[in-house]
Amino acid sequence: MPVEAWIVTVGNELLIGRTINTNAAWLARKLSFLGFKVLRIVVAPDSVDDIAEEVSRALSRARIVVTTGGLGPTYDDVTLEGVSRAIGRRMVLNKEALEMVRRFYEARGMVLTDDRVKMAVMPEGAKPLANPAGAAPGAMVELDGGRLVVSLPGVPREMEAMFEAEVEPVLKDIAGGIEVVECGFTAVGVPESSLAPYIRRAAEASPRAYVKSHPRGSELGDPVVDIKVVASGSNLDEARSEALRALEVVREGIASLGGRISEEDTC
Amino acid sequence: MPVEAWIVTVGNELLIGRTINTNAAWLARKLSFLGFKVLRIVVAPDSVDDIAEEVSRALSRARIVVTTGGLGPTYDDVTLEGVSRAIGRRMVLNKEALEMVRRFYEARGMVLTDDRVKMAVMPEGAKPLANPAGAAPGAMVELDGGRLVVSLPGVPREMEAMFEAEVEPVLKDIAGGIEVVECGFTAVGVPESSLAPYIRRAAEASPRAYVKSHPRGSELGDPVVDIKVVASGSNLDEARSEALRALEVVREGIASLGGRISEEDTC
Repeated sequence: MPVEAWIVTVGNELLIGRTINTNAAWLARKLSFLGFKVLRIVVAPDSVDDIAEEVSRALSRARIVVTTGGLGPTYDDVTLEGVSRAIGRRMVLNKEALEMVRRFYEARGMVLTDDRVKMAVMPEGAKPLANPAGAAPGAMVELDGGRLVVSLPGVPREMEAMFEAEVEPVLKDIAGGIEVVECGFTAVGVPESSLAPYIRRAAEASPRAYVKSHPRGSELGDPVVDIKVVASGSNLDEARSEALRALEVVREGIASLGGRISEEDTC
Repeated sequence: MPVEAWIVTVGNELLIGRTINTNAAWLARKLSFLGFKVLRIVVAPDSVDDIAEEVSRALSRARIVVTTGGLGPTYDDVTLEGVSRAIGRRMVLNKEALEMVRRFYEARGMVLTDDRVKMAVMPEGAKPLANPAGAAPGAMVELDGGRLVVSLPGVPREMEAMFEAEVEPVLKDIAGGIEVVECGFTAVGVPESSLAPYIRRAAEASPRAYVKSHPRGSELGDPVVDIKVVASGSNLDEARSEALRALEVVREGIASLGGRISEEDTC
């Protein structure tokens, strides 16, 4: 069974539709290919109560909770306060984090204002995560049962760099050697509704594969449907054969319906 | 007080990060500019239990719940089953929806298979929504307290066309004449952390405005920060003056910190 994960992305700009949530997709892909099962992605507003509610709920369901956004210097950057309330730990000035923030500004001849110091205030016992591309450190808190809350910045460049340098190695150990592959093909000349029975059968044939059809054009006329499979296994061969078994079922369906395959992604 | 809304986007492809959730951003923007307050965006997997859980939770908090995805002909298109469980209404074959599906396929010389008929099975009492760009009808269910569950397809072209033709007129009546404006500018030469006190003051000065800073480049060196305000009022003038009051506070801050404004969006 894969370890379960939950993503909480924080920011009013997401809830008013100013920003497209590319961070969630990036993280979901990373976590999935590390072998985690992402149960939910939730967008919460910049409010301590709402963030605390979502992090609590996430922790009651998943072992790994990743938040993005709300670590900066402005009044509405309150993610760590929400985390601290959710896990019942005080917010304290983290010395290691303060050193990171101080170095960042001092190297540029700037003093530590209250708004800058705020970025080093974290839940008690948090491990600060270095930000290779910005000022605000991230935070990782370990809880009982091996549960983990990881808080990353909202600026994509900073979030990605921090995840890869500081979080991915830890998560790799937790996921424990699950291999994930992805492959598929594009079917031309068969509407999705005609493929439906074969896709169901493919999913039944490969329980560790996730089979999905994505209609690209219209259902009729000149139907084009992408078939994608993501499969996992305890090693690459196992994952691949799980994926290929599912694809084979759909491939036969396409042939028997008079369609053809136009592009193929191997795995 | 704005009417509250909640978005539930359904699809495993979102949880494995294959697809970026542009639907959520499009809907969030539409709802916000109609005058609704979007409380959450949630991504749920293609599972009846999970969808039912998320729709129930949404309905316990918001008056308007919009779902996207999971209306198609394949085995994993189960959104309406999830909605039906959440609201405690049976799934029934909707005659009007069946007519829509039948016309769609018959015009193209195709028969109604089980997988196609499935797209016309909806919670009892639902109003089917015509799909101007595809086969699967949407569904709108009215509940007590004026609550509304609207289920739209996942293909963006279909979702957008259906929302604009069938949903927006209904929601406009519910929102009831709230006007929303958006404006802002780009500040150059001042790091976000120095602007922080002014942004807090701006938010305090305009309680019906949402003020946010978005650092574009790095915090230092050549800092570039977008300042955005979204404000609402019972008429356009009220919304505008709320927004401009907030921006004025930030503008003074930038001047006093030796920065300048490089681009301006008026409202």
